[in-house]
Amino acid sequence: MHELVARRFAFDPATVPPAPAVSSGTEQLARMLDHRVCRAFTADPVDDALLDLVLAATFSTPSKSDLQQCSVIVVDDPGRRAALAALIPSMPWIASAARFLVFCGDSHRIRAVAERAGTGFANDHLDAFLNAASDAAMHLSSFVWAAEAVGLGTCAISVLRNHIDAVADIVELPEHVFPLAGMCVGWPASEQRLSPRLPMTVTVHHDRYDDTGAAAQIAEYDRRRFGDYVPPADQQAGADRFGVADTWGWSVEKSRMVAQRERDQLARFLGDRGFDLG
Amino acid sequence: MHELVARRFAFDPATVPPAPAVSSGTEQLARMLDHRVCRAFTADPVDDALLDLVLAATFSTPSKSDLQQCSVIVVDDPGRRAALAALIPSMPWIASAARFLVFCGDSHRIRAVAERAGTGFANDHLDAFLNAASDAAMHLSSFVWAAEAVGLGTCAISVLRNHIDAVADIVELPEHVFPLAGMCVGWPASEQRLSPRLPMTVTVHHDRYDDTGAAAQIAEYDRRRFGDYVPPADQQAGADRFGVADTWGWSVEKSRMVAQRERDQLARFLGDRGFDLG
Repeated sequence: MHELVARRFAFDPATVPPAPAVSSGTEQLARMLDHRVCRAFTADPVDDALLDLVLAATFSTPSKSDLQQCSVIVVDDPGRRAALAALIPSMPWIASAARFLVFCGDSHRIRAVAERAGTGFANDHLDAFLNAASDAAMHLSSFVWAAEAVGLGTCAISVLRNHIDAVADIVELPEHVFPLAGMCVGWPASEQRLSPRLPMTVTVHHDRYDDTGAAAQIAEYDRRRFGDYVPPADQQAGADRFGVADTWGWSVEKSRMVAQRERDQLARFLGDRGFDLG
Repeated sequence: MHELVARRFAFDPATVPPAPAVSSGTEQLARMLDHRVCRAFTADPVDDALLDLVLAATFSTPSKSDLQQCSVIVVDDPGRRAALAALIPSMPWIASAARFLVFCGDSHRIRAVAERAGTGFANDHLDAFLNAASDAAMHLSSFVWAAEAVGLGTCAISVLRNHIDAVADIVELPEHVFPLAGMCVGWPASEQRLSPRLPMTVTVHHDRYDDTGAAAQIAEYDRRRFGDYVPPADQQAGADRFGVADTWGWSVEKSRMVAQRERDQLARFLGDRGFDLG
C-alpha cells in the first residue's frame, strides 16, 4: 500500500510514511491507488449482464438531494458509434473499446416529474445545472471504480464536449440533458501508464485554503514526475506558439494546454437546450 | 449480490436475474450496492494517517485532462467547524462527525501555474467552471467509496451551497475556487437506511435517449419504494402550499422539493469570485 501511495504522488517510497493497517477494503484502496487510464482494449466482448452489474453499482452513487439527475446512454448501434468515433479521429479507442457510454447530466427527468405532479419547477438557474453536472460526474468516477473492480479498463472522453451539438444529436438528447463525457470500457490489452498526482500538500488544505508553498511544491512535482525528460520538439504541444522548451513538466504541459481556447460553446449550447444559467 | 441489486432498485429479488460471476471485486461491488448515507457517528476519532490514506485513494480519481482541479479543505479548527455547523442547524451531524471536509472546484491553481509559466489562461468560460466542478464531484464520490471501504460512514452536505459566501469566507477560498459540498466522515453509530434508486430502465438508455415509458416506470417505482406509506401531515414537505397528500412517493416528495426556489445565488457568487460564465 505504502509503495502504491508513493508512486501515485511521484515520491520516493523511502520518504513516505507507512500506510495504517485497515481492517477491510485493502484490495479496493490498492486498486484505486493503482488506477490507470486504459486506451488499448482486446477484442473480447463485455456482455450486457456484466455491464448491467457495473452500472447497478454505479447508480448506487449518492445523488444530490436524491434527485437522481444522471442518465447514461449505452451506444451499441454501429452507425451512432461510428458517428461518435468520427468526431475525434485522434482517439481510435472510442471505436475499439468493447462498449461505449455517454454520461449525461439530466435535468429533463425531474422537470417532467414536477410537471406531471403539477408543482412546477422553480429552479431555473446555474445551481440546477451544477447539480445535474455533479450527479453525472459522481456517477462517471463511480463507473470507473466499479469497472476496474471486475478487471475492466476505462477511458473517459470529455473531449466529446468539443462537439457537444453533434453528440447531443447522435444520441438524441432532449432539452435539459447534456453530455458530460463519454466512457470507453473493455478488457485491457496491455499495461497502462500511471499518472502521478500533485502532492496532497498542494491539493489538501487544513482549516483554510493556503497555497503559500504551492509554487515550489509544484516545481518539485514537475521534477519528480518528469525527471530530465523533454519531449522531442515535434511532440511538444504549443511549440509553434511558445517555442521549443528545454525543460518539461506538468506545469509546462498544462499551461500550454490552457493557453489554447477551446469549448467556449457550452453556455450557448445549454441556452439552446432550455437552461437558464443566471 | 443479486439481492443487493434488487434492494438497490426496490425490486422483489424474484424478479431480478442472477448477477454474473465476477473474478474480482465482488466485495467492492457489494459495498457499493449496499451504500447508505451515514448521519449518526460514534465519538471515536478518525486519525490523520487513515484520513490521508482515504484521501490518497480519492486523489487517484481521473481528472479532466490531468488538470487536477479539485481541492479539499479539512476543517479541524473548532471555531471554523462550529461556524460551518451553525449555518445549518438542521444537520447536527456536521458538528458530530469525527472529521469534516469541504470539497472545492479549483480553477485558481491552474491559472496560477499558467501565469507563472507566462502562457496566460485562455479559457474564461462556462466549460472551465464545469471542468473544475466535475473534478470536485468525481473526487467527492470517490471519497465516499474509499471511506466506506475501510468501514467509515459519510454524508455529503451540498446544502453548504445555500450559504456559499459564508462558507467561502470561513475556509478562506481565493478567487476561482468554490465549495461544491461538505463531507462528514466518521465511524457509523447505527445501521442506516438504504435509498433505493430509479430502475435502470429509466436511467440507462440504449443508443438514444428514450423516456417513452418513464412516467409509468417512475409511478411503479414510487409504489415499490414507498408502498402505502404516507407521512403524517405535519411531516409532509410543501403541505402549506400543495395541501396534505394522501398518496406519497419519490415523485411527490421531489416535485415539492424542486417547486421551492433555492440556491439562485451561484452565478452571482462565481462572478464575484472572478469566473466568466459566458
